[in-house]
Amino acid sequence: MHDEADLIAYSIDGTWIEHRPLAVVLPENAQQVSELLQLANRERIVVAPRGSASGLSGGSVPLGGGIALALTRMKRILEIDRVNQLAVVEPGVITAHLQAEVEKLGLFYPPDPSSLNVSAIGGNVAENAGGARCLKYGVTADYVMGLQVVLPTGEIIRTGGRMVKNVTGYNLRQLFTGAEGTLGVVTEVTLKLLPLPKCRLTALAVFPRLEDAAETVSEIMGSGLLPASIELMDQITVQCVEELLHMGLPTDAEALLLLAFDGNYEQIVSGELAAATEICHRHGVRSLQSADTQEESEKLWRARRSISPALARKSPNKLGEDISVPRSAVPEIIRRIRAIATRYNLTIPVFGHAGDGNLHPNILCNRKDPEEMQRVREAAAAIFAEAIACGGTLSGEHGIGLLKKEFMEQDLGHEAIEAMKKIKLALDPHNILNPGKIFPDGHSQW
Amino acid sequence: MHDEADLIAYSIDGTWIEHRPLAVVLPENAQQVSELLQLANRERIVVAPRGSASGLSGGSVPLGGGIALALTRMKRILEIDRVNQLAVVEPGVITAHLQAEVEKLGLFYPPDPSSLNVSAIGGNVAENAGGARCLKYGVTADYVMGLQVVLPTGEIIRTGGRMVKNVTGYNLRQLFTGAEGTLGVVTEVTLKLLPLPKCRLTALAVFPRLEDAAETVSEIMGSGLLPASIELMDQITVQCVEELLHMGLPTDAEALLLLAFDGNYEQIVSGELAAATEICHRHGVRSLQSADTQEESEKLWRARRSISPALARKSPNKLGEDISVPRSAVPEIIRRIRAIATRYNLTIPVFGHAGDGNLHPNILCNRKDPEEMQRVREAAAAIFAEAIACGGTLSGEHGIGLLKKEFMEQDLGHEAIEAMKKIKLALDPHNILNPGKIFPDGHSQW
Repeated sequence: MHDEADLIAYSIDGTWIEHRPLAVVLPENAQQVSELLQLANRERIVVAPRGSASGLSGGSVPLGGGIALALTRMKRILEIDRVNQLAVVEPGVITAHLQAEVEKLGLFYPPDPSSLNVSAIGGNVAENAGGARCLKYGVTADYVMGLQVVLPTGEIIRTGGRMVKNVTGYNLRQLFTGAEGTLGVVTEVTLKLLPLPKCRLTALAVFPRLEDAAETVSEIMGSGLLPASIELMDQITVQCVEELLHMGLPTDAEALLLLAFDGNYEQIVSGELAAATEICHRHGVRSLQSADTQEESEKLWRARRSISPALARKSPNKLGEDISVPRSAVPEIIRRIRAIATRYNLTIPVFGHAGDGNLHPNILCNRKDPEEMQRVREAAAAIFAEAIACGGTLSGEHGIGLLKKEFMEQDLGHEAIEAMKKIKLALDPHNILNPGKIFPDGHSQW
Repeated sequence: MHDEADLIAYSIDGTWIEHRPLAVVLPENAQQVSELLQLANRERIVVAPRGSASGLSGGSVPLGGGIALALTRMKRILEIDRVNQLAVVEPGVITAHLQAEVEKLGLFYPPDPSSLNVSAIGGNVAENAGGARCLKYGVTADYVMGLQVVLPTGEIIRTGGRMVKNVTGYNLRQLFTGAEGTLGVVTEVTLKLLPLPKCRLTALAVFPRLEDAAETVSEIMGSGLLPASIELMDQITVQCVEELLHMGLPTDAEALLLLAFDGNYEQIVSGELAAATEICHRHGVRSLQSADTQEESEKLWRARRSISPALARKSPNKLGEDISVPRSAVPEIIRRIRAIATRYNLTIPVFGHAGDGNLHPNILCNRKDPEEMQRVREAAAAIFAEAIACGGTLSGEHGIGLLKKEFMEQDLGHEAIEAMKKIKLALDPHNILNPGKIFPDGHSQW
């Protein structure tokens, strides 16, 4: 496709970054992807793989006027294998659709459906990895048992498969997963499934002081309990959500914690939730609302799921980040983000997966205001620097893409990036596959 | 060191393969490893990293008369971080020692201590990955949060760290973990820890027919139960163990299953064990022995832990394999291995981690008998071919090393191996680090 409308439709992702491709290609199988990449490699045409473009780092935005390779037509669930508890799917499968299908069979695919496709931006199965359920269930990459990948030079390879355990040769599965479509295009994924937990209970805890909420998280995690989720919302986040939903959230509290436990035995799950709420009480919780039914639980989760639309109403744009710090550093990094918000006179709601240290500071902004955007850039840089100073890293879920590439060296150091570049060059000698992403090149794209 | 005795001591691993190094180097820190590799890279000296040489694939045996780089002096536990539930250790730390230390703090490092060092053979943290507890707790690689690695060209890099979630740049952690010391030398590992389960119960189930044992495994895994372990021993294995231990194991039964469940609530754990034994009863179990106490449980596990010494008594040598197949293929692969044993007139006890499809067929042999060794080689090749034909792979734990490299192409295909070779060449341009391992080169080393 190369109609104007199509070119625009495929020029964006979940960020505000925009670059028009020269053409859009919608392959239907690995062979077509291979033929395209062979041509591109020969003719030195750049190719940016993408799924449904739910990415939040600019990783799937086509640069340099090349081809947008959209995998949205490759959306078949090829197999759900109950005995081996796995699914074989094409990369464009909608995560929520896969989840609904496997749940019919009593199986469970935990990663968050906010990453629309199973394999967002082609090679980056880690995009939006896991979300709220990461704490207990790990990230998307943990579910990748096998991949079919088309290399930048056109070869179709398989790595891994239906084996639970596999140490044969280098671990290419994890290398391609999370390479953000720079090393190969994923054309098939074998995903591990779990038995669906029979019971899930949720509680919402309101804390007058953010520090107390953070202490509570530390103590729950140190107690031997393993919640499915511990989600944190700071005061600004709560205020935005309440403005949207009018569900009676306390807008004067500094923090909310949403705690979820799941398992197969209701008595145990409710016992674990009770143990966690007891810890909340020891740390000055103001009020505590437990959901006894699936419906009540869904209601509490609505608050969490409405964060993104609620923040979107507050300002024309937002820069959504996903720094990841050691769990113990959560209170400290939140303090530092507050100081940054004050210093740059910006509104920065913070929410995220407090239990595993993966936080989403969102900088509210208007990208048509150049002066404000300069402050946004400086604040983002300051947040990254503080995350690294707290022993953390740039991204826990969304990847590096265009948004964070200039901070890579600060995080990983020159030598580690050089090692990654050598791997990139080895597999993609003409740099045709999703160039300009991940690696710092001095060209900030926003 | 270059005394004759030292050179001999560092010429072997857990296999019978032997190559004498020119010299043995025992560094005490990453800087010394870096200096050695810079020298080796400049002078084109080959270097084979190793830990305590418990490897079972020849991966740490020094080839080509180069340097054996033993990391056994780097054995400090640098930190156990209770709040973040992780340990920072040097690569030569003895796994069992780390486990004892973290358990004092109520923490848990699940991988099997039969891999003597935390990071066996330098870069291969996956060696002997996980063992019996993999089923519930995953492989060693799943516990690697961060690495310090010295590259073949001498640069010291860090990848990952104390963050639970991390998608910043390519996943070098998993690439170096499992590279069997061919891409870099691991000089520090950050390992994820779990809360120590408060309760663990075990049962031993005796099955007259192997097929029934295999069916039982499938049904338990399909039921939503998640045992810590399901270990299988076939008849020959049981006979060998009984000859050693005289613990009253039934030598006429075709299979034993050792089932373990763990968790924090004794009532639940015993309920789960009861549900699993109920499944055993539906599949013709002959007798079932449950351990109610830690001591009784230990007694049952003695049978499992004695397999290796028991087999060692039966013949001068054994070729221990660790094929990994989809869980559902376990009965079929065992049937095929039996047929291979008959065809080549060899004794091949089979045992292993039935719940995750990782089996250890051990070919008993005498390596001084060239005619028999020819049959052993052919039988091993046949077992690998059948594992691959059943949708499996060459190695679930031990790695490829020297023993299995000639079967790589059959398993992964030419193009995937070429991709791996490109990565190797990119990071180790002069092929100084553990050359001759993993990649097929037509030189079978045994």
